[in-house]
Amino acid sequence: MRNCLVAQSGGPTVAINASLAGVIQGAIDSKEFYKVYGSINGVQGLLNSRLMDLTHKVETTPMFIELLKKSPSMYLGSCRYQLPDYKEDDTPYAYIFKKFDEYEIDAFFYIGGNDSMDTVDKLSKYALAIGSDIKIIGIPKTIDNDLCVTDHTPGYGSAAKYIASTLLEIGHDTSIYPINSVTIVEIMGRDAGWLTGAAALARNTYNDAPHLIYLPEVAFNKDEFIEDVKAAMDKYNNVVVAVSEGIKDADGNYISATNAVEDTFGHSQLSGTGKCLEYIIKENIQVKVRSVEINILQRSAAHMSSITDIGEAFRLGRHAVKCAIEGKTGIMVTSIRKNNEPYSIDMGETPVENVAGLVKHVPREWINERGNNVTQEFIDYAYPLILGEPVVKYQRGIPDYLDISHLFPNKFDN
Amino acid sequence: MRNCLVAQSGGPTVAINASLAGVIQGAIDSKEFYKVYGSINGVQGLLNSRLMDLTHKVETTPMFIELLKKSPSMYLGSCRYQLPDYKEDDTPYAYIFKKFDEYEIDAFFYIGGNDSMDTVDKLSKYALAIGSDIKIIGIPKTIDNDLCVTDHTPGYGSAAKYIASTLLEIGHDTSIYPINSVTIVEIMGRDAGWLTGAAALARNTYNDAPHLIYLPEVAFNKDEFIEDVKAAMDKYNNVVVAVSEGIKDADGNYISATNAVEDTFGHSQLSGTGKCLEYIIKENIQVKVRSVEINILQRSAAHMSSITDIGEAFRLGRHAVKCAIEGKTGIMVTSIRKNNEPYSIDMGETPVENVAGLVKHVPREWINERGNNVTQEFIDYAYPLILGEPVVKYQRGIPDYLDISHLFPNKFDN
Repeated sequence: MRNCLVAQSGGPTVAINASLAGVIQGAIDSKEFYKVYGSINGVQGLLNSRLMDLTHKVETTPMFIELLKKSPSMYLGSCRYQLPDYKEDDTPYAYIFKKFDEYEIDAFFYIGGNDSMDTVDKLSKYALAIGSDIKIIGIPKTIDNDLCVTDHTPGYGSAAKYIASTLLEIGHDTSIYPINSVTIVEIMGRDAGWLTGAAALARNTYNDAPHLIYLPEVAFNKDEFIEDVKAAMDKYNNVVVAVSEGIKDADGNYISATNAVEDTFGHSQLSGTGKCLEYIIKENIQVKVRSVEINILQRSAAHMSSITDIGEAFRLGRHAVKCAIEGKTGIMVTSIRKNNEPYSIDMGETPVENVAGLVKHVPREWINERGNNVTQEFIDYAYPLILGEPVVKYQRGIPDYLDISHLFPNKFDN
Repeated sequence: MRNCLVAQSGGPTVAINASLAGVIQGAIDSKEFYKVYGSINGVQGLLNSRLMDLTHKVETTPMFIELLKKSPSMYLGSCRYQLPDYKEDDTPYAYIFKKFDEYEIDAFFYIGGNDSMDTVDKLSKYALAIGSDIKIIGIPKTIDNDLCVTDHTPGYGSAAKYIASTLLEIGHDTSIYPINSVTIVEIMGRDAGWLTGAAALARNTYNDAPHLIYLPEVAFNKDEFIEDVKAAMDKYNNVVVAVSEGIKDADGNYISATNAVEDTFGHSQLSGTGKCLEYIIKENIQVKVRSVEINILQRSAAHMSSITDIGEAFRLGRHAVKCAIEGKTGIMVTSIRKNNEPYSIDMGETPVENVAGLVKHVPREWINERGNNVTQEFIDYAYPLILGEPVVKYQRGIPDYLDISHLFPNKFDN
């Protein structure tokens, strides 16, 4: 009996460790693998010989799998390493496959976004070229939800829940003064508006915030934006605007870009899109205005994850193991939505080349004509993904997450 | 039997509605008052005749008190209204006391920070001057924890818990890459460092972040800051810095102030202190740097309140009612720490003039000599205040808070 290997790559999400837990539990339950190894810092762990015995961790750490499912960020760390084309330079490939041999690896699971799927694609094609029968399987994750083929990506539901809940809390916070105000909330998503659109889930029987939503899928028009805010101020004292960091003007320039900001305000160095919209309001409407950037909190707030998201991430990890055992390779596991009410999904898979390097945008018809709100279709799609709350254990007043000190320098202990 | 009146003022906290709930429940339980009225938007509600019958709300809304205790922001709204000196202009006083008569008010409870305590002080002195025996009582609240006399203020513990938990999550988030990085986290507190110091509670058996903490109580020295960060980078790959928005240089200038920033970088308009420190690092150390501003989330995240804080806020509300019934006036109710382990407090009171307009700073000896960390005394003080988690009810994936539509224009319905 041989071993399997798992690694994580790309940016953190609240669900990526649940997929890792699913791989570990799936591999152990299958009894097809002797050990599950984890590569620290993505494929770089292979290049630097930093592997961790996860089977041993499960055996020696009480509640390891349960804690792992609920811990944010990436237990195995990440990397920004990109493989070259093996036809041009196969040095790292040769080294990685030598390591696979050394550790007697039968299957390699890589949890990540579309860059990581590019790695899966390249490694599986190299395996084919050299006649290796090692199985290389991708497991999706990204808060951005911008991977193709799969209905949605693990990490998205939790980030969407955090964003919706935070927008509701901002709605409460901004309602206290009987004067006009505008609050701009900048949300992540450089290329796609899935996260920003999820702000609409903050609306309930009494809260209409966010009153305006701007996604990267529609060209941003400054004059229309000013009109939109003025119109909203006729209806609401305190206008809340959700905006994606990735909005661009009709020429394709990021609104947050240095040049665009210089043109408009003569400032040389501004931070984000929210700040930029704040200045637009300041210069054009006499009203109190503030911008809030949710920043990395939206991808690390494991204290408010979606149990739907965490559960599916775990299932996808297990499914990846099943696929490997069935002999599949060069694939990414996917979610297939079977039903919306009651919501249910099936596990599936797709050749990873259908995903690598591609971006799934919010369909234009899920955004209203004016481009300042999402439609009911969007809400119906995103809503089931944020449902359910995990029981978060606290220790000394703060969440009890899994020790990650093996990621710190000079602390690596296999 | 006559009535009592309650209002809220200043900025939102997660616990101010729990104090409101304590007043309502205390007044009902005492059987000394026929009705509890709420004034919408602080004393402005009295000036504009916007009063709400809270006894009726309790009778007609299931779980009203329980929901109110767990809902963020301010159920009765806030105001920025400041009373003039009554010896110079008693017009608003005469109007307010006419309203007190009209609604047969025996006691007025004002929940707020030190500006609001100024209002309590002025109203109680005016009452004395005109021979009115209406009781005017202040109930403290502020996330800033900067009120004198009281051991701490309701709202602080919850904000501190949110900040500590968020810093732990940021610690996880920033640990994933095996490269150097610096993350600056800007925390509220214009005058006092209580909130920023609470970031130290994020540290646990494996997490040392935040590695540096800068409070407004110690003059900020840019050169020492650069040295501190470089020294921390020798020990940690990913350095996390917690900084108060209110830090100042040795001349008393805010680091975030336009001028200070212009002097250093030639930029004309920058946002916060975090951004400013980000630029200092960028210009002086070759390292990946990012700044995160927790912003209004730290005062509105009721989904992660401290049950200690919420419980004490409720108790203070009840205690205020008791004080009024005992004939006290011109006072603010206070917390008196009896014991730290096990932690317990008594309720007390102080003449409001001991609080109004004053600021309680973090003692210099609770900050280390270098001025880049808090001491164990600070941690021992703040730690009990963040303990305990409420059961937060969710509805459709987001927290189930109390309807605040009575704060919206054209929606006021008594």
